[in-house]
Amino acid sequence: MNILILGGGGFIGQKLAVALAQKVRLRGKPIERMVLADINAPRSVDAPFLVETCRCNIADRASIDEMIGADVDVIFLLAAIVSAHAEDDFDKGMEVNLFGALNVLERCRTLKTKPTLVFSSSLGVFGGEVPDPIEDWTLFNPQSSYGTQKAMVELLLNDYSRRGMVDGRGLRLPTISVRPGLPNRAASSYLSSIFREPLNGVEATCPVEPDTMQYFLSPRRCIKNLIIGAEAKAERFGQNRCLTMPGLTLSIHQAIAAMTAVVGPEPAKLISWEPQADIQKMVAGWRFNFNTAKADALGLKRDASFEDNIRYFIEDDMTAV
Amino acid sequence: MNILILGGGGFIGQKLAVALAQKVRLRGKPIERMVLADINAPRSVDAPFLVETCRCNIADRASIDEMIGADVDVIFLLAAIVSAHAEDDFDKGMEVNLFGALNVLERCRTLKTKPTLVFSSSLGVFGGEVPDPIEDWTLFNPQSSYGTQKAMVELLLNDYSRRGMVDGRGLRLPTISVRPGLPNRAASSYLSSIFREPLNGVEATCPVEPDTMQYFLSPRRCIKNLIIGAEAKAERFGQNRCLTMPGLTLSIHQAIAAMTAVVGPEPAKLISWEPQADIQKMVAGWRFNFNTAKADALGLKRDASFEDNIRYFIEDDMTAV
Repeated sequence: MNILILGGGGFIGQKLAVALAQKVRLRGKPIERMVLADINAPRSVDAPFLVETCRCNIADRASIDEMIGADVDVIFLLAAIVSAHAEDDFDKGMEVNLFGALNVLERCRTLKTKPTLVFSSSLGVFGGEVPDPIEDWTLFNPQSSYGTQKAMVELLLNDYSRRGMVDGRGLRLPTISVRPGLPNRAASSYLSSIFREPLNGVEATCPVEPDTMQYFLSPRRCIKNLIIGAEAKAERFGQNRCLTMPGLTLSIHQAIAAMTAVVGPEPAKLISWEPQADIQKMVAGWRFNFNTAKADALGLKRDASFEDNIRYFIEDDMTAV
Repeated sequence: MNILILGGGGFIGQKLAVALAQKVRLRGKPIERMVLADINAPRSVDAPFLVETCRCNIADRASIDEMIGADVDVIFLLAAIVSAHAEDDFDKGMEVNLFGALNVLERCRTLKTKPTLVFSSSLGVFGGEVPDPIEDWTLFNPQSSYGTQKAMVELLLNDYSRRGMVDGRGLRLPTISVRPGLPNRAASSYLSSIFREPLNGVEATCPVEPDTMQYFLSPRRCIKNLIIGAEAKAERFGQNRCLTMPGLTLSIHQAIAAMTAVVGPEPAKLISWEPQADIQKMVAGWRFNFNTAKADALGLKRDASFEDNIRYFIEDDMTAV
């Protein structure tokens, strides 16, 4: 079992690599080699099998051709230009999110080895005037360029899978919280900052109203779901290889109350409220009410409560801040 | 009012050109110039304004740049590689149906003149495991590369419109019948042949079972709907610029009975039934039960009966066979 993680330097990629190092097997076979590739060479992880780190630019077809050989069994495609960045820089988003993914698909097609390709999509594919809840059969109606690009790749992933060029699986990530590390250019970045910074005794700003609803998933549960997605039998996906990961629907206020329930009232006092029109507008276009029947049937899971999200962050990532 | 029809040599492009020549105005302004462009130079049409014909390859960005100037007000993008052809030749379908459309969008973006762009999409964007009827908010779940490419362009059309780069409108065409001319490589081609050939006293073969359901629209009504789509105010499309044209849901058997009702029993006797597995498989993936509330509200219409489709063909196209 030979694994490639594109975007292996990102926080999801790093956590996935650690989880695979502990799991030792994937799709019923022992892992022999795992390559972490990213635009900058990623940190390596300890594992009882060969781990390599590489620089790779998915927007460059030659770089992808070099990276993906006929010996690769499973590819995780996590590399992306995040939401607010893709909205600010349309060309960059298209280059990486659409054409980068297409480079991966085209390389797989050329190889004829039909690798498993696990793609991290986004709830951003949904939006606009569609009824609640979002079902497995709800229209893509993205209100951002990021969501548009992710939706297009889902369509390609399905078509390349239908044609037998790749064994694709697309998993739409909810808002992943609490993320470790620094804020990024995702419009959802504050949805980690408002917990992460206060838990570390640092002030944070919330740019949206406290009653804003969100659809949350912890990093720990997200990684487990990615692995379930990689291991599920292809035929269980039916005529569409993509689905929404289960999450928790909560207001910002409720999520903060969960933090308070776990660690007491002090961290919440470090949050100041400064609504920002541009972020509010983008976030207002996101959906938070999902029926994830297909993912549930495949065994993907949501967190039991946002208290768990807080506990996982404390256990997994407090030292990483 | 300066109009460009990409795919102006096709039968829809030609009929649209004739209709615009008669209409003389579009979007409240007199038409001053109309350019018909296609991979081979199209036939011209008689009009009380300037009509030009050009060769243009939408897959070639330079050809598109030359074709679309800052003076173009309305573009009809009808050029496409049809369904069975795009299924047989994946690269050709991607080149024309996806990247060709992207060339048009990118050219419009560069010009900053925000032309109206009317795109002919397809019911092929729908399919697979989604509930009946197909609503305005039903998932794209194409079971063909053609449908995949059309769905991706719808997403791009929406995003370029949302960003103010173009004023896009995507109209999904039902099975257009009765088409004039020769069979083409659309998997739906027989849905015209089985009427057109017998009406001209020629034998025809139907490759699917008589109880196969289809969603039909006449060429005459399709052209009217394209023009309504071009003229509708942008804000009436809301957060999605694309919709399904209303059609009639009928079995092949019912449609043939309509032909018999108009012209008597002789033509139907010229149809022989030879089910073909590949065509049946593709057609079985198409949907035929649609709720077109959004199109209805904009004033797009279906034919009153399939008898009308037969009459329109006799009136408009019998001499063209």
